[in-house]
Amino acid sequence: MTEAAAPPDEFALIARWLSHFDAPDTATMIPPGDDAAAVRPTPGHLLLATTDALVEDVHFRRKTWPAAALGHRALAVNLSDLAAMGARPRWALLALGLPGDVGTDWLDRVATGMAKGCREAGVSLVGGNVTGAAQVSFTLTLLGEARPDRVLRRSGARPGDVVFVSGTLGDAALGLESLKARRAMPRKLTDLERRHCRPTARVRLGCALAEARVASAAIDVSDGFIADLRHLLDASRVGAEIRLPDLPLSPAYRRATLGREDPLGPALYGGEDYELVFTAPQKRAAKIAEVARGARTAVRAVGRVIGEAGVHLVGADGRRVLAREAGFKHR
Amino acid sequence: MTEAAAPPDEFALIARWLSHFDAPDTATMIPPGDDAAAVRPTPGHLLLATTDALVEDVHFRRKTWPAAALGHRALAVNLSDLAAMGARPRWALLALGLPGDVGTDWLDRVATGMAKGCREAGVSLVGGNVTGAAQVSFTLTLLGEARPDRVLRRSGARPGDVVFVSGTLGDAALGLESLKARRAMPRKLTDLERRHCRPTARVRLGCALAEARVASAAIDVSDGFIADLRHLLDASRVGAEIRLPDLPLSPAYRRATLGREDPLGPALYGGEDYELVFTAPQKRAAKIAEVARGARTAVRAVGRVIGEAGVHLVGADGRRVLAREAGFKHR
Repeated sequence: MTEAAAPPDEFALIARWLSHFDAPDTATMIPPGDDAAAVRPTPGHLLLATTDALVEDVHFRRKTWPAAALGHRALAVNLSDLAAMGARPRWALLALGLPGDVGTDWLDRVATGMAKGCREAGVSLVGGNVTGAAQVSFTLTLLGEARPDRVLRRSGARPGDVVFVSGTLGDAALGLESLKARRAMPRKLTDLERRHCRPTARVRLGCALAEARVASAAIDVSDGFIADLRHLLDASRVGAEIRLPDLPLSPAYRRATLGREDPLGPALYGGEDYELVFTAPQKRAAKIAEVARGARTAVRAVGRVIGEAGVHLVGADGRRVLAREAGFKHR
Repeated sequence: MTEAAAPPDEFALIARWLSHFDAPDTATMIPPGDDAAAVRPTPGHLLLATTDALVEDVHFRRKTWPAAALGHRALAVNLSDLAAMGARPRWALLALGLPGDVGTDWLDRVATGMAKGCREAGVSLVGGNVTGAAQVSFTLTLLGEARPDRVLRRSGARPGDVVFVSGTLGDAALGLESLKARRAMPRKLTDLERRHCRPTARVRLGCALAEARVASAAIDVSDGFIADLRHLLDASRVGAEIRLPDLPLSPAYRRATLGREDPLGPALYGGEDYELVFTAPQKRAAKIAEVARGARTAVRAVGRVIGEAGVHLVGADGRRVLAREAGFKHR
């Protein structure tokens, strides 16, 4: 409708964007260029589908966020959803919203970051759309596959199960604080900023857990460890006890929170770590450790599932308090 | 990142939105509420995927566009892509971008329109996302299915084939002109405005053509009849001759263009009719008529495919001119 909002040449833009990506996989029967993409699903598998958006000035700032990291991140937040289901990522569709002042160089860098992520995750970009818009936005829809009896859900946690978490918590929230305070593009990201900009979706771990059929429930940390754990517990109609001294914290996190009034706040309530939180029966603990090693991903037992509702935090002194309600608002 | 841009309660909003929709179909194994949706593809079928967005002040104005029609339209533009492939629509994911000033009543009306469209088309809404944004946007990803040997592509047109078009052309472009001139919400849409706001995706026709294996190529009219025909011809490496007196025009179109300098302009170059343009060998003409009747959709032969490149327009006087390059810019 508004001509001014439309990018100069949609078809040239699409061709240039796609030039950064590998050719689609052999299961892609009709690649981008027709009215819709066509792919051949793997027989006997479920199709998993998720969609998530990155919007300028909501999730990132164009002037201070590295462009390639944006491309990486738009994919990673969706990969993380599939990882939490134990699904193998396969195909992506990308809807771009672009104001008139977006440069092709900047878009090239975004595309490079996304293409690299797609290559590493085995994802083919098979479709998309470009529209004019007031803000840059990347809305990615990701399709994956899993065997029906292997899918990880939120609803299977049982009292007595161990609560596990991958990687470390809270780094992304601290990285976001630091990025928001910047006025110009950083020449180099700090470790914490990198955790925010370039989250590692735990696809290998999610698929390995699903394959080994050892987890009773799983979710990824986008809203915050406590908020997402609560989603898992609510879906399973149980509660949990979390041992605060066992929370996995990075050296950078510990340094950054030294002397803070609430040093565990970002780890508990900060969002966008894109780690996996999952539960498993105690007797599977050894197998979990083996699976995590195979997936080259650190995994830590941080608590246990209980029948009593709510998330109960247990300190080093044995004091037990209810976690507060607030999660991280990132959208 | 920007708290102010986030809608008040994402989870309440999602629950309310979903309450307007029917429960997902029986092939939906994991409905909205987990990290990703899971559906069971039909054995032996290809999965077709397409995504398209409606953005405020680019594709519509919130103050003068009927809300329910927006919901209808966000779905219809995607249905049309699947119709052009001859695919049966199955599942949708919806990414919403919402400024803080969007009212729940307005959203309810949008949801009602989309839910009605989903019901009529047999589409289950299985996933989505909500984010804060400066403009309202609806980015819908639609998944459909088709048998591999039935898919309609753009690339199969051969010299000698007849060029067909469904419905009538140019109404949507005239309706858009009229809507853009409005300063307040119309109490009632004109016929032409309705054609813009509530396009009818030709799903029945597309599926019937695919099922009968009678069309050699197909595309839907979003950029404009000539522009989209050209996409089909380019993909098929052929040209076409279009007989101007045979273009299907509605009575409302004829009235609105009476006395215009270029009365066929909107029909040839106006966009967003979401009709199907398709080609078929001459000997299939009778079968095409039968298929169209079965799909209760008017279909008109408007020209023929030729070996010579380009779109050649033939007037009532037999004069032959090349169609101009410009298409309709709607994004």
